[in-house]
Amino acid sequence: MPTARAYCIDSPDGAFHPTSIERREPGPTEVLFDVLFAGICHSDIHTARSEWGPAHYPLVPGHELAGIVTQVGENVTGFKVGDHVGVGCFVDSCRECDNCQAGLEQFCTGTGRTIWTYNCLDHYGNYTDGGYSTAITVDEKYLLHIPESLPLAEAAPLLCAGITTYSPLKKWGAGPGKQVAIVGMGGLGHVAVKIAVAMGAEVSVISQTMSKEADGRRFGAIDYVATSEKGALRSVAGKFDLVLSTVAAEEDITSLVATCKPGGAFVDVGMPAGKSQLSLRALCGTRAVVAASMIGGIAETQEMLNFCGEHGIVPQVEVISGDQITQAYDNVVASKVRYRYVIDTSTFPEV
Amino acid sequence: MPTARAYCIDSPDGAFHPTSIERREPGPTEVLFDVLFAGICHSDIHTARSEWGPAHYPLVPGHELAGIVTQVGENVTGFKVGDHVGVGCFVDSCRECDNCQAGLEQFCTGTGRTIWTYNCLDHYGNYTDGGYSTAITVDEKYLLHIPESLPLAEAAPLLCAGITTYSPLKKWGAGPGKQVAIVGMGGLGHVAVKIAVAMGAEVSVISQTMSKEADGRRFGAIDYVATSEKGALRSVAGKFDLVLSTVAAEEDITSLVATCKPGGAFVDVGMPAGKSQLSLRALCGTRAVVAASMIGGIAETQEMLNFCGEHGIVPQVEVISGDQITQAYDNVVASKVRYRYVIDTSTFPEV
Repeated sequence: MPTARAYCIDSPDGAFHPTSIERREPGPTEVLFDVLFAGICHSDIHTARSEWGPAHYPLVPGHELAGIVTQVGENVTGFKVGDHVGVGCFVDSCRECDNCQAGLEQFCTGTGRTIWTYNCLDHYGNYTDGGYSTAITVDEKYLLHIPESLPLAEAAPLLCAGITTYSPLKKWGAGPGKQVAIVGMGGLGHVAVKIAVAMGAEVSVISQTMSKEADGRRFGAIDYVATSEKGALRSVAGKFDLVLSTVAAEEDITSLVATCKPGGAFVDVGMPAGKSQLSLRALCGTRAVVAASMIGGIAETQEMLNFCGEHGIVPQVEVISGDQITQAYDNVVASKVRYRYVIDTSTFPEV
Repeated sequence: MPTARAYCIDSPDGAFHPTSIERREPGPTEVLFDVLFAGICHSDIHTARSEWGPAHYPLVPGHELAGIVTQVGENVTGFKVGDHVGVGCFVDSCRECDNCQAGLEQFCTGTGRTIWTYNCLDHYGNYTDGGYSTAITVDEKYLLHIPESLPLAEAAPLLCAGITTYSPLKKWGAGPGKQVAIVGMGGLGHVAVKIAVAMGAEVSVISQTMSKEADGRRFGAIDYVATSEKGALRSVAGKFDLVLSTVAAEEDITSLVATCKPGGAFVDVGMPAGKSQLSLRALCGTRAVVAASMIGGIAETQEMLNFCGEHGIVPQVEVISGDQITQAYDNVVASKVRYRYVIDTSTFPEV
């Protein structure tokens, strides 16, 4: 049975430490690949710290995996040894329910539901271990091709941050002639700016401060608004066809929703752990809709990777070693990362 | 100049008392009509008590007017003396902006904006006086025909409660094969049940208690759920294509939104004065949209009145005299009315 070097955490306030985990021998339709890089997503932190409910420890997080195929099952048709591949937020689903059939595997309603890449009881009765590891076995239906033109270290975060922003940008019509605001310019937000710009939209950033303005404009934004500046949000009231919020903290979204055009949409992908505030009376006046979006299905994730390959879109990453994960979490929460940490698994020791 | 007997209030915590007000001689395109009945809407109370911002006193509220034409200007083409007519929440707008041209006069963005039926500075430099009065002068563009088949006392509340619920029910697709929940069964909610049933939808009521269940089923609802009963909302999770909330109090709407089907809509028409709570993370899971709706334009209001005429839909009303208005306000807030108070203006004294 293949073993992998990994980093795990043992409690909500613990520190990450090296470990060793077992992976399955690939079955007939499965692929074993070397995970070379794994992004750190804010969801990893919410989960590892049990902020989204009690986690199952020891926990190996990571759902932004990029690597190279080392072994394929006898019936695998879509992948071969040496292919550049990735895995996102889930590794299996029932494959038969309406949502699975519709390419919405992240909303699987079948037996066992969506099998998340980590912290999830899988069809084999084990809790899944994620991407902070050197290898993983996955059915080819849940594996993605990463275009050769994208460096693997930089491509990794696309598997979550990329699809999380691409899917609602596409669904809600970001494109030529459309005014799109991206709220928050962190790991998700800075990718959203690049994708929305590549889709042809006129993109503004709404951030807490002006500290990342130069980056925002370099990524293609034509305007940059700081919520800390008095009257700033009012200056863009009623301006946007789509406001995509990537902020992970709950807050009063009334004034953000008010930046939508009549009939526009405020769409959240930040998934705050608590409750947000909203004036329904103000919502009457804007005639906007408030919605939320969660990653995307396998087919749309591949479409997003191809789109990023064609447009040369990659996140800005800081590559770190395994022993820097614990500190990196604190930095993400403190908004100190520019813009996504990616773990180089070649730094993982044998234990 | 025509004078009218009226009831007004002088301060947020004052009592209503008789008064006399002046109305305009009808201009060439204007109609003067006797207001026979005026509904009491929760908005009247919010405004009279300055809960939606400071009101202009003395205030004559009322935006559910039903009566009979007594005089028409020389260029009036759509109305004649003796016609049954009504006025809703507004009496004028710019008539030229995109919204006015699109039949959305309630969202007028032109000079002076929408002129509300009361508590609004009009084009003549006066604050408008509403329907708690025996007569009013209105341009024929903002006047509605009330079908002869509907008794005027019962038809009056349709001018606000009817259009407020008809418009979102139509926009969001209430009809055959659709599951619709009406939240709250007060003045708005009970009309919403009747209209949604007439549109062909399968209608459920979500109320605080089961106290109005028999009424709800008599109005055509096939299910009745009380939020005060543990697990009740969970039993209808994911059930509804449309959840129309008529509740005027702010609250946590997360569990109500969770009763939407994937891709369904939660639409508020209750316009709570404060902020409501919503888990955006939970919204991800439902894939519903949250929206709000505010009355409707003139053309759609006429469409609604014709629809109610064809289907024999009228609100359940309690007709009261002018000296009962103050007590009636307290009863509405305490949910003691079944289901809409309508003031009989023939009870108004000369002063």
